[in-house]
Amino acid sequence: MGRTSDARERIIRAAARLFLAGSYQAVGLGELCAAADVRKGSFYHFFASKADLTIAVIDHHAAAFDAQLAAAGAIGDDPVSELMSFAVAIGRVQAGFEGRFGHVVGCPFGNLAAELSTADDTAREHLAGVFESWQRRLAAAARRAAENGSLRPGTDPEALARALLGQMQGAILLAKVCRSPATDIEASVTDLLRAHLTSDRLADAR
Amino acid sequence: MGRTSDARERIIRAAARLFLAGSYQAVGLGELCAAADVRKGSFYHFFASKADLTIAVIDHHAAAFDAQLAAAGAIGDDPVSELMSFAVAIGRVQAGFEGRFGHVVGCPFGNLAAELSTADDTAREHLAGVFESWQRRLAAAARRAAENGSLRPGTDPEALARALLGQMQGAILLAKVCRSPATDIEASVTDLLRAHLTSDRLADAR
Repeated sequence: MGRTSDARERIIRAAARLFLAGSYQAVGLGELCAAADVRKGSFYHFFASKADLTIAVIDHHAAAFDAQLAAAGAIGDDPVSELMSFAVAIGRVQAGFEGRFGHVVGCPFGNLAAELSTADDTAREHLAGVFESWQRRLAAAARRAAENGSLRPGTDPEALARALLGQMQGAILLAKVCRSPATDIEASVTDLLRAHLTSDRLADAR
Repeated sequence: MGRTSDARERIIRAAARLFLAGSYQAVGLGELCAAADVRKGSFYHFFASKADLTIAVIDHHAAAFDAQLAAAGAIGDDPVSELMSFAVAIGRVQAGFEGRFGHVVGCPFGNLAAELSTADDTAREHLAGVFESWQRRLAAAARRAAENGSLRPGTDPEALARALLGQMQGAILLAKVCRSPATDIEASVTDLLRAHLTSDRLADAR
């Protein structure tokens, strides 16, 4: 494969960068192929449509986020540390974008969710699947945290997982529109988690 | 004025609807003028650019939200009830959109924030100003709630205000991409607030 597989990867990386720097709709095929250094004919060799490319871009970002999540490393099998690792990973991804683009440019998934959900149902469903897989992981960790007594009585693990996911998205969006620093994002997610920890567990987590 | 001022209003309402049903970039001038039943020449009589129109659309939604907030009615001068009224107002606005469009189509401000923040700095700054005015109102109510002992010790009113605003945006975005019901949005915002109330105040709020 060599050169061929490299071209596909270059198109995905260029699209990922251009979608973040601007928006999905704003990127034309000509600009994309120039940025990826491929001919227009090559694009249709690899992708049936822009929606098809978008699914590959979503998977590219999801793999990068999974790698950050693994690197953020939950301590042993501590579920609270696993929940915290999502905040750490989000913070690192966003700090990386801030470094590359000069300011917070939004969540790659959230940006596409906002722009595409009303326009392309295939891409929307693919995005929903990614969000749902994080919801399941967060909810599983939250259930274990409830079982080992780390969460305040009355905390619903499913609702906490959804709130954490929502806070990640909302905090990134506010940082993007208000041009506030990426560090605010991790803090707002860990604050939310801490509000649901028992005082004993909170003392440990300080 | 009569007919003339009516045309400007029709353009704003059509743009508000089309931006929500699709996206900002996807709406062309021809489609907009057809939907508003005005000639293309009329558009430039009222608006210097699409960004100029967008600012009017933002103000249109902000006025509608303020009206919902007033209707959601804080009880007396109770700051917790004032914070709750934001969740109620958001829930009503989103239920209204769900009824009109068949599903949650996103926050009019959040959608534009996600799509435009990287593209148009004038519109981004205008949006940031709207978010900051809500942040100030929420923070003022949160400070009063802290002062009257409604918030759990250690709760930072500014951070709580930002978390509530973030949760509103994130919950709407998740409902949009996952096609979940608008009722989830209000619940996720009130849950967040309740997690920060003292147990005495929480018992009152049930």
